[in-house]
Amino acid sequence: MAASSSIPKTIYLGTFVHCVSLSDLEIGENGAIGVDENGIIRFVEKDTELGHVHEKHPDWNNAEVIHLKGNGFYFPGFIDTHTHAPQHPNTGLFGKTTLLDWLDTYTFPMEASFSDLSRAQTIYSNFVSRTLSHGTTTCAYYATVHVPATNLLADICLQRGQRALVGRVCMNTMSPEYYRDQSIDSAIADSKASIDYIRSIDPTGDIVKPIVTPRFAPSCTSDCLSALGQLAKETEAHIQTHISENKNENALVKELFPDSKSYTDVYDTAGLLTPKTILAHGVHLSQEERQVIKDRGAKISHCPASNTAITSGCAPIREFLDMGLTVGLGTDVSGGFSPSILEECRQAIWTSRFRAMHDGDEAKLSTQEALYLATRGGAAVVGMEDRVGGFEVGKEWDAQMIRLGEVKEGGDREGRFDDGPVDVFGWESAEDRVNKWVYSGDDRNCVAVWVKGRLVHRTARFRD
Amino acid sequence: MAASSSIPKTIYLGTFVHCVSLSDLEIGENGAIGVDENGIIRFVEKDTELGHVHEKHPDWNNAEVIHLKGNGFYFPGFIDTHTHAPQHPNTGLFGKTTLLDWLDTYTFPMEASFSDLSRAQTIYSNFVSRTLSHGTTTCAYYATVHVPATNLLADICLQRGQRALVGRVCMNTMSPEYYRDQSIDSAIADSKASIDYIRSIDPTGDIVKPIVTPRFAPSCTSDCLSALGQLAKETEAHIQTHISENKNENALVKELFPDSKSYTDVYDTAGLLTPKTILAHGVHLSQEERQVIKDRGAKISHCPASNTAITSGCAPIREFLDMGLTVGLGTDVSGGFSPSILEECRQAIWTSRFRAMHDGDEAKLSTQEALYLATRGGAAVVGMEDRVGGFEVGKEWDAQMIRLGEVKEGGDREGRFDDGPVDVFGWESAEDRVNKWVYSGDDRNCVAVWVKGRLVHRTARFRD
Repeated sequence: MAASSSIPKTIYLGTFVHCVSLSDLEIGENGAIGVDENGIIRFVEKDTELGHVHEKHPDWNNAEVIHLKGNGFYFPGFIDTHTHAPQHPNTGLFGKTTLLDWLDTYTFPMEASFSDLSRAQTIYSNFVSRTLSHGTTTCAYYATVHVPATNLLADICLQRGQRALVGRVCMNTMSPEYYRDQSIDSAIADSKASIDYIRSIDPTGDIVKPIVTPRFAPSCTSDCLSALGQLAKETEAHIQTHISENKNENALVKELFPDSKSYTDVYDTAGLLTPKTILAHGVHLSQEERQVIKDRGAKISHCPASNTAITSGCAPIREFLDMGLTVGLGTDVSGGFSPSILEECRQAIWTSRFRAMHDGDEAKLSTQEALYLATRGGAAVVGMEDRVGGFEVGKEWDAQMIRLGEVKEGGDREGRFDDGPVDVFGWESAEDRVNKWVYSGDDRNCVAVWVKGRLVHRTARFRD
Repeated sequence: MAASSSIPKTIYLGTFVHCVSLSDLEIGENGAIGVDENGIIRFVEKDTELGHVHEKHPDWNNAEVIHLKGNGFYFPGFIDTHTHAPQHPNTGLFGKTTLLDWLDTYTFPMEASFSDLSRAQTIYSNFVSRTLSHGTTTCAYYATVHVPATNLLADICLQRGQRALVGRVCMNTMSPEYYRDQSIDSAIADSKASIDYIRSIDPTGDIVKPIVTPRFAPSCTSDCLSALGQLAKETEAHIQTHISENKNENALVKELFPDSKSYTDVYDTAGLLTPKTILAHGVHLSQEERQVIKDRGAKISHCPASNTAITSGCAPIREFLDMGLTVGLGTDVSGGFSPSILEECRQAIWTSRFRAMHDGDEAKLSTQEALYLATRGGAAVVGMEDRVGGFEVGKEWDAQMIRLGEVKEGGDREGRFDDGPVDVFGWESAEDRVNKWVYSGDDRNCVAVWVKGRLVHRTARFRD
């Protein structure tokens, strides 16, 4: 099986960049990182060269060496804490709709079509390729209600080597007759079947894990939500759902659950708020709800591109961070219009600026903060903060090699920009280069991606 | 000279898409557009094929034929109504600054370095390549205070065939000692010298034109502004400047021009508001100022990416359009972080949604409206609405060939995405394809660009 194929002991030479705190990047120029056969980082050296590395670590004299040439750096793999793989073909299609009519018009018909496994194969395979190409090494996926297609998505992730939380979507009400769970019993049985399958193909859960996935409160009855809470408890599984994305949605939840104190209380009552819970959006959460989420140890997936595209609002991320909530980024395709977490970093910066226009400068997120949310923040959201998100001894090598474009004397490149949208002129500091990448970079700059030491994506520019 | 090189009479076959009104796109499938040796559109046919075209237009039987294969369409070239070519190397570098400290920290030192012509050659050549690669066929450029470097930018545009308004920047106060005009007389003489030079290299003004460019009110004295107004009048030149971008800037203008009724009045008094004037930003204009601008026939360049990045605000574009102001899009590099007008379309959509979050749904711009601003709106801003911006007989062939990516059965592309970020699965309508391009497309999708019939940019995918 691809996931367990052996990898050579490897020394990665070049600049490495990672977040050491919410506001600080570490830039290690002339670095060397040693990764063993199990994909574990065994040493991290700065300001060094290969001779010194071999001297200091004689056991590594026969290790493979990967030397990052030209402008560029190693960066931790991105963690996408919320996206919908089956909605990928709908990217860019929403017109002027907002959440609830958008679901009916675009989303449900597309998701329903995943009863056809060959269609699921095409779309999921394409989407996993896409997310890998953008440097996403871990992804929390919503699938559809269909068990076979959901299991197929887990197979594809395992085979391609992308870490994934894969969730069969549960929805037993307020959904079209043609696309819903027919009863609570069948819903729980189907979710259980998918959990069992995913654990059977990757018993250690190193690469793929199941995740209990009530679509969102309006599409599940109270009894169904409670049964899912119970299922998650029994199976010790992760949980993902949406919360407080849009004002109309909040009004609907209030109407559907008149006895609940709040949207958050609906989930809390059902036993769905745990330290393993990922709550997408949270744009309009009250102070009281935020505190309940914090008390339960549940996490927030911030999806700014989607929140902007369907005019949901701008989540108060500075306030979330100040009170100690755990926050990561989610692309939320196809409410979001891009599978790239780098684009989501930009969107997080923009939406924080829109908050700043009303709330004051304190609301602004810096480049460093956005990158933190995209890596260490995301790792904490999916419960993997001890394994990925940064480059320390003992962590696993989930990384991307970033290469930037170089402008030659004279400047004329005859219109060839295969090396991507970032222009480096040569006088920029290492920090400038990181900033240029964050503001202008795309998948062309992500020339290689590793998960747990395994090379899972590469472009023609890797080792050219 | 490249600009006057002859081009073959050409029939362009394939789908063409353009805006016919602010809210309506026309999508002509199986179209044919005939472009003569002068780059003028001579016929536009829909739902046709080459045999019928030859029958109907026998004079064109020997014309060259360009057949757009696969997913894609012809679209009018984009018009960038405001950008700063010398700031290109600073793209992505602004941290948390806002307008005034950003100018001192990043902008002035970079612009001052354009006293070095070889540096100017490298940066300008690179930037013109970049804007062409994004389908920008007409661009209003701010250069720097330096006459030789400004003239060089005009030379490069003429040689590469990009239509450009090229402006020597005028600034005689509130600017660093190392980077400013030393007197009003020298400022006017230098601006005049650059106007004369640009008119000498392209006497018809078909490709390059000069534009009088007071940086913005705070960096010019009243007398200097009036002298520039006089210069524009005498030379019948276009004018470009910034207005009401940022609240601190507005406060500064009020302090510097205590006798003026408003920021707009400062320019109006100096004779700088004419039908040939491009005003960038206009985020915080009062109703009264908007009316003066409309009365004078001056135009607005909307620069949403920049306005967001440096937290200037969200311009009320719906209100501008409703009152009949002429509006185009500007990338405003490097306040804006991308040279792409397609990205600017997205940014215009986003910022309209941020306004909608406070002002209501009416504020939202649709995809079609953003594309209108990027083409016909921009054409009207630069005074070329009779020549470019759409595909009608008598207009000039300023166009881009857009090709989209095709997902094959099975979906696995082995991570190769040379054909860009847009995935077309085959079941999408032509309108869906346009939407996917707007939300996800990039320069990889722009495989060829023509200005006045001349091929000015192509990628490997053109005719592959």
